[in-house]
Amino acid sequence: MPMRLTLKAKRERSMSKHLTKKSIPLCVTTLLIGSATQSMGTEITSMEQFQQMPLAYPKFMIDNLWILISAALVFVMHLGFATLESGLTRQKNTVNILFKNLFIISAGLLTYAFTGFNTMYPGEFNNWLSLGGPIGFGTDAAAQIANLTANYANYTYWSDFIFQAMFAATAATIVSGAVAERIKLPSFMLYAVILVAFLYPVQGSWKWGGGWLDDMGFYDFAGSTVVHAFGGFSALACVLILGPRTGKYTTSGIKPILGHSMPLATIGVLILWLGWFGFNGGSVLNADPVSISLVFVTTSLAAAAGCLSAIFIASIYLKQPDITMALNGILAGLVGITAGADQVSWMEAVLIGLIAGAIVVFAIVLIDRIKIDDPVGAISVHGICGIWGTLAVGLFSSNHSFSTQLIGTLAVSLFAFVSSLILFSLIKTIMGVRVEAEEELEGLDVAEHGQPAYADFQSTMN
Amino acid sequence: MPMRLTLKAKRERSMSKHLTKKSIPLCVTTLLIGSATQSMGTEITSMEQFQQMPLAYPKFMIDNLWILISAALVFVMHLGFATLESGLTRQKNTVNILFKNLFIISAGLLTYAFTGFNTMYPGEFNNWLSLGGPIGFGTDAAAQIANLTANYANYTYWSDFIFQAMFAATAATIVSGAVAERIKLPSFMLYAVILVAFLYPVQGSWKWGGGWLDDMGFYDFAGSTVVHAFGGFSALACVLILGPRTGKYTTSGIKPILGHSMPLATIGVLILWLGWFGFNGGSVLNADPVSISLVFVTTSLAAAAGCLSAIFIASIYLKQPDITMALNGILAGLVGITAGADQVSWMEAVLIGLIAGAIVVFAIVLIDRIKIDDPVGAISVHGICGIWGTLAVGLFSSNHSFSTQLIGTLAVSLFAFVSSLILFSLIKTIMGVRVEAEEELEGLDVAEHGQPAYADFQSTMN
Amino acid sequence: MPMRLTLKAKRERSMSKHLTKKSIPLCVTTLLIGSATQSMGTEITSMEQFQQMPLAYPKFMIDNLWILISAALVFVMHLGFATLESGLTRQKNTVNILFKNLFIISAGLLTYAFTGFNTMYPGEFNNWLSLGGPIGFGTDAAAQIANLTANYANYTYWSDFIFQAMFAATAATIVSGAVAERIKLPSFMLYAVILVAFLYPVQGSWKWGGGWLDDMGFYDFAGSTVVHAFGGFSALACVLILGPRTGKYTTSGIKPILGHSMPLATIGVLILWLGWFGFNGGSVLNADPVSISLVFVTTSLAAAAGCLSAIFIASIYLKQPDITMALNGILAGLVGITAGADQVSWMEAVLIGLIAGAIVVFAIVLIDRIKIDDPVGAISVHGICGIWGTLAVGLFSSNHSFSTQLIGTLAVSLFAFVSSLILFSLIKTIMGVRVEAEEELEGLDVAEHGQPAYADFQSTMN
Repeated sequence: MPMRLTLKAKRERSMSKHLTKKSIPLCVTTLLIGSATQSMGTEITSMEQFQQMPLAYPKFMIDNLWILISAALVFVMHLGFATLESGLTRQKNTVNILFKNLFIISAGLLTYAFTGFNTMYPGEFNNWLSLGGPIGFGTDAAAQIANLTANYANYTYWSDFIFQAMFAATAATIVSGAVAERIKLPSFMLYAVILVAFLYPVQGSWKWGGGWLDDMGFYDFAGSTVVHAFGGFSALACVLILGPRTGKYTTSGIKPILGHSMPLATIGVLILWLGWFGFNGGSVLNADPVSISLVFVTTSLAAAAGCLSAIFIASIYLKQPDITMALNGILAGLVGITAGADQVSWMEAVLIGLIAGAIVVFAIVLIDRIKIDDPVGAISVHGICGIWGTLAVGLFSSNHSFSTQLIGTLAVSLFAFVSSLILFSLIKTIMGVRVEAEEELEGLDVAEHGQPAYADFQSTMN
Repeated sequence: MPMRLTLKAKRERSMSKHLTKKSIPLCVTTLLIGSATQSMGTEITSMEQFQQMPLAYPKFMIDNLWILISAALVFVMHLGFATLESGLTRQKNTVNILFKNLFIISAGLLTYAFTGFNTMYPGEFNNWLSLGGPIGFGTDAAAQIANLTANYANYTYWSDFIFQAMFAATAATIVSGAVAERIKLPSFMLYAVILVAFLYPVQGSWKWGGGWLDDMGFYDFAGSTVVHAFGGFSALACVLILGPRTGKYTTSGIKPILGHSMPLATIGVLILWLGWFGFNGGSVLNADPVSISLVFVTTSLAAAAGCLSAIFIASIYLKQPDITMALNGILAGLVGITAGADQVSWMEAVLIGLIAGAIVVFAIVLIDRIKIDDPVGAISVHGICGIWGTLAVGLFSSNHSFSTQLIGTLAVSLFAFVSSLILFSLIKTIMGVRVEAEEELEGLDVAEHGQPAYADFQSTMN
Repeated sequence: MPMRLTLKAKRERSMSKHLTKKSIPLCVTTLLIGSATQSMGTEITSMEQFQQMPLAYPKFMIDNLWILISAALVFVMHLGFATLESGLTRQKNTVNILFKNLFIISAGLLTYAFTGFNTMYPGEFNNWLSLGGPIGFGTDAAAQIANLTANYANYTYWSDFIFQAMFAATAATIVSGAVAERIKLPSFMLYAVILVAFLYPVQGSWKWGGGWLDDMGFYDFAGSTVVHAFGGFSALACVLILGPRTGKYTTSGIKPILGHSMPLATIGVLILWLGWFGFNGGSVLNADPVSISLVFVTTSLAAAAGCLSAIFIASIYLKQPDITMALNGILAGLVGITAGADQVSWMEAVLIGLIAGAIVVFAIVLIDRIKIDDPVGAISVHGICGIWGTLAVGLFSSNHSFSTQLIGTLAVSLFAFVSSLILFSLIKTIMGVRVEAEEELEGLDVAEHGQPAYADFQSTMN
């Protein structure tokens, strides 16, 4: 059935995230359908016919359900980011951070529906740049069914969109933490919308849309590069333009600014870990038992190793059992394993996590030393560890080349940095990006939102 | 097999929630079973026989699993309500609100088991009123199996009960927020028990139990009317009897009373959004890939649109980026899409959310202006937007009539209002409904529960 | 196929948690495979062959997916414990408690991978004691596949490990709450690692690894004894060695020490309830619709009954609607139902919960009276109610003997108590277990971690 396979391959380009990965299970599906019906050449022409296929239809139901549950898990990551970022910053800016996170998930989903999805997974493009329109399919069941049955997809068009949309919004959230406590709200909102609408999907298309990075054999299972390094280096550009929080770097030295709620921060990290089961587990793009259970194991063990490693290094280096380093260690392990969660053994996952946990401690301290003010450590966690995770695939998996991994992750990081540098500079020129000094001092909650986060508590303003 | 279909139809009446919806997938199931076994007329007489049916049994497993996962998701909505309601009120009443929420989910589940479920899904009734006894089936596997195999249900009796029970308890929770900060605890407990045991199931039976609203073609997919408008207008009745919080409406004007923790409120709303994937997604009543993935998309996009719309309207109308309006906008979008999440296109979902987000801002301000004191905006979010969502089905779906939708939602809202007015008045007469003025001033936590919510913090009492 | 069945039985010993339970569905699976392929004697030799089996393969996919989702739900219980324990203690020790919980889940997963899993589910052992090495299988798909197809397991080796690993870590978490606010961090870390690496798996092997308790017919569905009573009596031993918090028991009487955040505690309990759907539901070890839906119902109703019962008893006995008792009542009901969630009717589940909720109130008060200082009530909730739940199986299920249940739960509780007494005494001798008095007074957050949990709030130190 070469005709069908060609059709399928086109479908792959336009819809799937992991071109190379997905072609295998899909071929298997085709075989299964054949054998199950005992009629290899059967043409599936209607939903009713598909629903009567004993092996293919239940498999389709399970795969689709798992993608949707994964989408819900990636959704809770937004709750994780909202609580983590607000917990690690001062109470006077809490409403502002929560507000930004509510805006990001909402604007992100809509933006991705109106242009991002079809920019990232274009039907046809030059492998470098595409601009897409809104998602398709209404309630017209006929079209939906035709699409399904023509392609033997593992999940519906809708599931594909919602899973990817939840991913897309996380990229903007990563930036949100780094620029916290001094960015102007409307400027951030404009930046975030453009990020999700264009910048993220354009580089996403290079790998997951079947573009040039995919063509050269670059591998990024669930987005150490496409999501995390992209987010981290976008954040770096914004932070450089924005400058540090007032009072952070003084002539008398670097002033540590403590987060206002460690319970909120801890809730955030554990919810992010939970969400990562969908982030990585759903990136298998079906519910294949061997793949998804391996991914659960490697993801969990890398997170655990990142935590222990960061605790250990911080105990020696910072001379105390530092909870923010434990939290960042978990995230570092998770970001690190994301590029190769389906490619490495459990021992390798532990090693990737251990190294990520060490990297993140040194990176956070170093970035602070060179006076780049990143309140939540987003550049280190997502940027640096995103690169590490991508390179680790080249180191541990014999199927992937280190140099290809290096080129891929640097290309995306550079694109993220430069494009955000240009975009954020433009926004700075047009409308400014930084709040007034007195607003920063008072706190953005009262200054910008007219409401404190904790109306009934006495605060030690700082 | 007309005999079987009649049997199935009876089963539908007694067990299913969405009579009209469910008859379609069930017919399909019957066909599938027929074709899969290549023996159209086969009578299924044992669980063993059912378990060996290649297409029907896996489908049953998946459908059932999804209903259970949905029940767990609706369960987390109770955590969402608990945190949202406590976050939007003062810290001195936090223990009281949390306690009420713990009571509601516990008493709600038990009440629904002892009478609510069989009141709402009666075997036979006059289409208007039924009173049911406790749920059936012990560990007697034989009975359970007979029921399953006789009806080719999509899920077990137990799954049906637990999913519906989690729903039922939410109706009482909606009231909880509106009456916060001044209601007497035992009075609320009595009211909530009767609500879940009788009032909610009686009106629920009109549509989901196959009663008169269902007969006339009224459509309410997952409960914009049956759950939300019902809860919202029950709340209105209670609030009118209870009166506003002391100091809220003074001769010098309306005093805004700020919620004590925006992180708690935000956690609440994002958890509610998560839970809504089960609330709406589970209301498909099976794991049909096309339906559940469409529902995930419409639910998410309506929530997102509600958020942006409320932010936009509040920015103009209230002149600030108001976080409580952003939170209520999300909930408004979710309540609004609930009646037709499986019936509208994604663009229509966006439109429904945009309108809901606008409605909720004006409704909250208006209700406050006419001195109805609803601390969390429950009447606007659940009542007004519940009606809007129900009417939207009539506007956007060609299968449903606007006037039928209008009659249905008004009938339920009126029933909710009048029955709660009578019940709560009775409770007021018998035992009183409002705490003493000094208790209200001191806060219910210490006055009623003997314990502050935050023992170690200095509060600015208000 | 006796040969195959023997092979399967061995596999059972080495891999399954519930030996007696699991043999039934596996036999069914074998039959199903036979009938579905119409070739009873077919030898499955490759993954490809397995993937083409119409009934067996979808069933395998669903079962495996449910185990993984359950693992994720048990994971969130760690978030539940972290928030519950910190909420019920003083704000000055919050960072310390959160840190311990981050450490436990991380060290627990790694420890269980390196030795715990194979100690608990040994291939061959004397039914009393085994010491196992690291988990096996790399990315070598061939080995994984051979294992799967040779055994017709319900889930993969990886899923088995990660589900059990999440369980193992909870045992240490139970201790964490009881020793809070005065234990030395490194001593606790050492203790927790040994607990998860050896003590928990050794007694776990007695029942779930097919050891002597399993041989004698002891029944513990999801761990009222193996997890909860074990954790509770380990905690008792540690608390006795550690002594009470300074100022708790004075000559002038028992001083109640209030928890610092009831919202955190409530979030914790509701998240634990959510996680319990995986803890109990996943312990079915497949997605059998009848079993998992019954378990959802019994689990929920027992929790609800525990809550109401504890509220009622506390109202009479403590003369106030006590929120911590409501919270502990829910947990008591959950712990109580865990041993027999798949064995009792819904009415019996309600009864088990009602009794558990009453027990926990009296146990907490009594344990406090005899000056055993357990800040979060872990000994009562997990220890005492764990025993109650195990005995309840003997009372309500005709398949199980009360005396066997009594022997089993006492044996495990005694083992937990004695082994922790020895281990913790050893640690005390070597490195001490208690912080300095001034550190305890100052609070462990600043004293041990150099960071307050709430940097921006004024605290009323206590």
